[in-house]
Amino acid sequence: MAGNSIGQLFRVTTFGESHGPAIGGIVDGCPPGLTITAEDIQLELDRRKPGTSRYTTARREADEVKILSGVFEDTSTGASIGLLIENTDQRSQDYSKIKDVFRPGHADYTYWHKFGLRDYRGGGRSSARETAVRVAAGAIAKKYLREKFGMEIRGYLAQLGPVKAQQLNWDEVHNNPFFCPDPDQLTALDDYMRELKKSGDSVGARVNVVASRVPVGWGEPVFDRLDADIAHAMMSINAVKAVEIGDGFEVVEQKGSTHRDELRPEGFSANHAGGVLGGISSGQDIRVSIALKPTSSISIPGQSIDIHGQPVDMLTKGRHDPCVGIRAVPIAEAMLAIVLMDHFLRQRAQNHDVVCTTPDIARQQDE
Amino acid sequence: MAGNSIGQLFRVTTFGESHGPAIGGIVDGCPPGLTITAEDIQLELDRRKPGTSRYTTARREADEVKILSGVFEDTSTGASIGLLIENTDQRSQDYSKIKDVFRPGHADYTYWHKFGLRDYRGGGRSSARETAVRVAAGAIAKKYLREKFGMEIRGYLAQLGPVKAQQLNWDEVHNNPFFCPDPDQLTALDDYMRELKKSGDSVGARVNVVASRVPVGWGEPVFDRLDADIAHAMMSINAVKAVEIGDGFEVVEQKGSTHRDELRPEGFSANHAGGVLGGISSGQDIRVSIALKPTSSISIPGQSIDIHGQPVDMLTKGRHDPCVGIRAVPIAEAMLAIVLMDHFLRQRAQNHDVVCTTPDIARQQDE
Amino acid sequence: MAGNSIGQLFRVTTFGESHGPAIGGIVDGCPPGLTITAEDIQLELDRRKPGTSRYTTARREADEVKILSGVFEDTSTGASIGLLIENTDQRSQDYSKIKDVFRPGHADYTYWHKFGLRDYRGGGRSSARETAVRVAAGAIAKKYLREKFGMEIRGYLAQLGPVKAQQLNWDEVHNNPFFCPDPDQLTALDDYMRELKKSGDSVGARVNVVASRVPVGWGEPVFDRLDADIAHAMMSINAVKAVEIGDGFEVVEQKGSTHRDELRPEGFSANHAGGVLGGISSGQDIRVSIALKPTSSISIPGQSIDIHGQPVDMLTKGRHDPCVGIRAVPIAEAMLAIVLMDHFLRQRAQNHDVVCTTPDIARQQDE
Amino acid sequence: MAGNSIGQLFRVTTFGESHGPAIGGIVDGCPPGLTITAEDIQLELDRRKPGTSRYTTARREADEVKILSGVFEDTSTGASIGLLIENTDQRSQDYSKIKDVFRPGHADYTYWHKFGLRDYRGGGRSSARETAVRVAAGAIAKKYLREKFGMEIRGYLAQLGPVKAQQLNWDEVHNNPFFCPDPDQLTALDDYMRELKKSGDSVGARVNVVASRVPVGWGEPVFDRLDADIAHAMMSINAVKAVEIGDGFEVVEQKGSTHRDELRPEGFSANHAGGVLGGISSGQDIRVSIALKPTSSISIPGQSIDIHGQPVDMLTKGRHDPCVGIRAVPIAEAMLAIVLMDHFLRQRAQNHDVVCTTPDIARQQDE
Repeated sequence: MAGNSIGQLFRVTTFGESHGPAIGGIVDGCPPGLTITAEDIQLELDRRKPGTSRYTTARREADEVKILSGVFEDTSTGASIGLLIENTDQRSQDYSKIKDVFRPGHADYTYWHKFGLRDYRGGGRSSARETAVRVAAGAIAKKYLREKFGMEIRGYLAQLGPVKAQQLNWDEVHNNPFFCPDPDQLTALDDYMRELKKSGDSVGARVNVVASRVPVGWGEPVFDRLDADIAHAMMSINAVKAVEIGDGFEVVEQKGSTHRDELRPEGFSANHAGGVLGGISSGQDIRVSIALKPTSSISIPGQSIDIHGQPVDMLTKGRHDPCVGIRAVPIAEAMLAIVLMDHFLRQRAQNHDVVCTTPDIARQQDE
Repeated sequence: MAGNSIGQLFRVTTFGESHGPAIGGIVDGCPPGLTITAEDIQLELDRRKPGTSRYTTARREADEVKILSGVFEDTSTGASIGLLIENTDQRSQDYSKIKDVFRPGHADYTYWHKFGLRDYRGGGRSSARETAVRVAAGAIAKKYLREKFGMEIRGYLAQLGPVKAQQLNWDEVHNNPFFCPDPDQLTALDDYMRELKKSGDSVGARVNVVASRVPVGWGEPVFDRLDADIAHAMMSINAVKAVEIGDGFEVVEQKGSTHRDELRPEGFSANHAGGVLGGISSGQDIRVSIALKPTSSISIPGQSIDIHGQPVDMLTKGRHDPCVGIRAVPIAEAMLAIVLMDHFLRQRAQNHDVVCTTPDIARQQDE
Repeated sequence: MAGNSIGQLFRVTTFGESHGPAIGGIVDGCPPGLTITAEDIQLELDRRKPGTSRYTTARREADEVKILSGVFEDTSTGASIGLLIENTDQRSQDYSKIKDVFRPGHADYTYWHKFGLRDYRGGGRSSARETAVRVAAGAIAKKYLREKFGMEIRGYLAQLGPVKAQQLNWDEVHNNPFFCPDPDQLTALDDYMRELKKSGDSVGARVNVVASRVPVGWGEPVFDRLDADIAHAMMSINAVKAVEIGDGFEVVEQKGSTHRDELRPEGFSANHAGGVLGGISSGQDIRVSIALKPTSSISIPGQSIDIHGQPVDMLTKGRHDPCVGIRAVPIAEAMLAIVLMDHFLRQRAQNHDVVCTTPDIARQQDE
Repeated sequence: MAGNSIGQLFRVTTFGESHGPAIGGIVDGCPPGLTITAEDIQLELDRRKPGTSRYTTARREADEVKILSGVFEDTSTGASIGLLIENTDQRSQDYSKIKDVFRPGHADYTYWHKFGLRDYRGGGRSSARETAVRVAAGAIAKKYLREKFGMEIRGYLAQLGPVKAQQLNWDEVHNNPFFCPDPDQLTALDDYMRELKKSGDSVGARVNVVASRVPVGWGEPVFDRLDADIAHAMMSINAVKAVEIGDGFEVVEQKGSTHRDELRPEGFSANHAGGVLGGISSGQDIRVSIALKPTSSISIPGQSIDIHGQPVDMLTKGRHDPCVGIRAVPIAEAMLAIVLMDHFLRQRAQNHDVVCTTPDIARQQDE
């Protein structure tokens, strides 16, 4: 019970269903003094918004966020920040047919067994609609970290089905609706998505997120390690099935002599670790990669059962993303920002008693 | 700060350094009525114990656990359970040379920057020694879940460097020091490890864990999803760099028509999801896979810096596992048991008000 | 940081300032299946509402609550419940004069020092306005507990300044604007308040709350005892300075032979303990008593300082309750309901493994 | 479940029964760099130790504490601190008679109903024996706060049965076994206790605790207020039935013009508030008062029931304090220290972004 909060000192709690009147949340623990406006948050929300391209769901939501508290004269006060986004395009009628049946691959069956009843409209609470609030909360964390540390938290689509980005051009990421950092793959992506839509099927994706200029020393061993909390946050995103830090599964075949990042006065020799050593940030880039499953809402018929256990033929209609991975980029960035913000505060609580005079070699490397 | 606890209703808190007098922990939230003895816990601890084969560290620890509270006449009382394991083979003298230098790939540099000082003896708190307490705590969870649900939580070494298990023979897992489920790979493993030791290098590994007979309905969306908490717990194990649930990264290239596990009155058509849908257990096997990096303590010289930022040549001596992945099998099982136990209790807190009469198709499939 | 949540399994998180656009909160952990409507909550809110009598602040708020999520077809789904109450009567202009000065007895000085800035309009987050959300959240807990256990959680004004209730007539409590259970004191109360208002001063109060038909066994020693959590919840209400359980401070002069409540097959001999033994409910009535300080907003001039440390003469204007204790009755009931609901769920998580066949003597006494 | 922890950033978790092999705990979140030895802790433990005077239980415990981790070369490292105190004088045989009966006023009945079984030896987990660990953990907090802020956290016996301290002479408190600050009452106390012991009865007490030089700004509204967390911590001590902050219940009859502490450039005019305004420390002394009930273990026969609900005559034997309030002084100090330490860290997490230049008038007053 009570699983709708994340973070300890920077704590985000959310509410809202796909087809209720509104979604929203509370950001508790934002330090006072941050300049923050609804427009700042809106910029991030617009990146995630449905209906912005033909590759994502046709549902159109203004996704207009209101700040209800915790900000006074455009400045955070230290009080809890209430966020509200009204649902404007709900169309509940689309969903009445699935009231008593379980869509394969969805949370219908598990919610039903867990709670004994469910809000079947558009998946209710299990809909990815709730991730809009994560993006809004993450926008606050992102802005704080950017202003205080110059931190950048950026994601991109690394792979969509068989199409892989072969280069990482950050400037390119926001020039296309795929968040793809490789301009040479845009035609392939476009073609692939067109075919996919025609087939009525969906596909998975890999999204990478990188945080730069994270100070050394964040993370709380042995359980609340920075990487453990990142894994938790990422796996809590709808459709995510895997998380890697640094080299991830590649380490299985690596030798220690390859993997260990040597330290030199002018910086680390490499970043196989992905910016985390012993659960604590090393000052290098935090590198995270996640896998998102293909959405289960496809227009190819399938088999399922109803709430009485009887077999039914399923054909999911409605407006769905053929690749939920695309819109996951701002969500993954938001989750990473929330985790980093929380760990910044946890570290700030302790780090004043003993001063470390050893050079921060990752910062030297940056310069 | 205060990152040494995991779980909410079944909460494990640990303490202890590699070379202190003892390690130990507190298991808070074990329900009353469980028959549990030090011997039950010892069985699990012995599986993880160093010095049991020539493939793991030569450090010899009795790893004898004492139950100090919470158990009366071999039965849990509901009070917090104190666990203690004395360190008997400490040899602090081995470590004095590394007092002022940072071993590459280790947590030395990050602990130093975070805390401003460190217990350098054997890695102090960052040593994998603390995982013994996880295994002890996990033994309690495992026993409870086995007795109440017939649940089995079992792991195995799926890959070590280039050597992959090609078959899954559960009976074989405990017949060899590698936890390898494929008897045909034992020679290859033995040869590989022999070469590796000779070279002074280390290698990574993949470990898989499976929980069977997990009831449907465990997991607390949207943040405390079962898979998110599993990812957190797994990534909190020393050396783990990646976590997959179900098909994991394979989903990137999967189509929705392939990935979605259809529901039929007699059971699910497949288990691509790995037993979790929408963050809630589906009743199918929970399938988890993790990657462990090669240990950074190798006898191949490397470069590093000291606490003044000056370059030093490093040669790690001491007794280390050339593949920490091998001994990670019981640790990963323990962490999965702890997470499942916690979520069982969280689900039991809510699930009595509305009764679900829909058949549990995964259980039907089992029979 | 992040102090705006209470409860572990039934967790209430709130936001909102006195003069922001809205206040609200999230109730996370309400079990599925509870019939709950905005009207149910409104009934409790109306009891606390300002402007309902001439004895409380003249501020008029509709205090109309909206349920934004977690309830589907008038039934709780198990998802987090979003609650929203718009502020309609804000009159910020009243407060601009106090922007740079600290009202004595208020939180102005401490908020300013803590956060470095503050929303000075009406006390901002420190205003008792936020307690409306507590009442709304408590209404959900109250309804659940009433329906499941027949539990009644009822409060009354035990003393206002020098005027004490001499009898406890529950039927009378809601027949007067003071929540006074003694009809013989109404004239005295009315006279006293009239004089008080004329003098421009304010006065303190004692409020008692009683929960009946609380099952035996709730409370989690040794720190999360039921009485400890009640003390926390009560002391978190604005203006509360003291909390008693059972006989409270009277025990200082009591003998053990008097205080101990003997057990007999037909019930307890008395209830000096106030329904809690060893931090766990005994099945008897939970008896709580709290003291509320006189509001510091009075129209008698006083001395203070401004944000530069310079002396200023203060005269608080605005609309304030001369006795905040009166309206505290529904708030105290709400807080007790929230704590009991949380502990019910925590107990339900554990209490199925060992069945107690010993008679529940408090229930026998009830019958 | 899982109620054996207190604090968020400075988190104390305890285990241990009256008659088990040992009691102990984990202090998680102690900042690195604190000089701390077992002797430092022992000093506080010795103040609470049973068997030190003829007024407390005859049980003799060495109460020798061991630090098992988190401290290296007498300095805290930031890792979790394991504490262990072995039980040496257990005499389980004294308790076998009460196996199946419930002692009136004790937690026997509620533990039995809650858990379905119990460790009946000396009250098991419900024994005040566990408070030794609180004192040990509090000693760490106390030392940190004293060294960093010059903070003093001191308690005294304000009243024992009818005997009240009439003056507060801090130097006197540790010159007598009662922690009484009034030398003129020592004869009266001695006489009273002698009579009490003869009669076989017990009596309640009032203990006051004061923390001086607490910085302004600690406490996290709206639920984790400093006073609310103090109330929680105090009420979690065995036998405590009431908590007051500042004037406490006296506020019921106070006028606002009396209660509000005016601010002047040279300091506050008074401290009715007890050092907390709006849930945040004001920089003035934190003043707390608690009531402890008379111990229920008396040698006067009483009635009770057994686990089958049958009536029994009770005569509690064993070694018990006729007034548990006496030894509660160091325990109350420890709990206040733990809460303050936790809130110091929570405040340190946020207070660097906006700097407050307003003078701290309470500090000016001190000088």
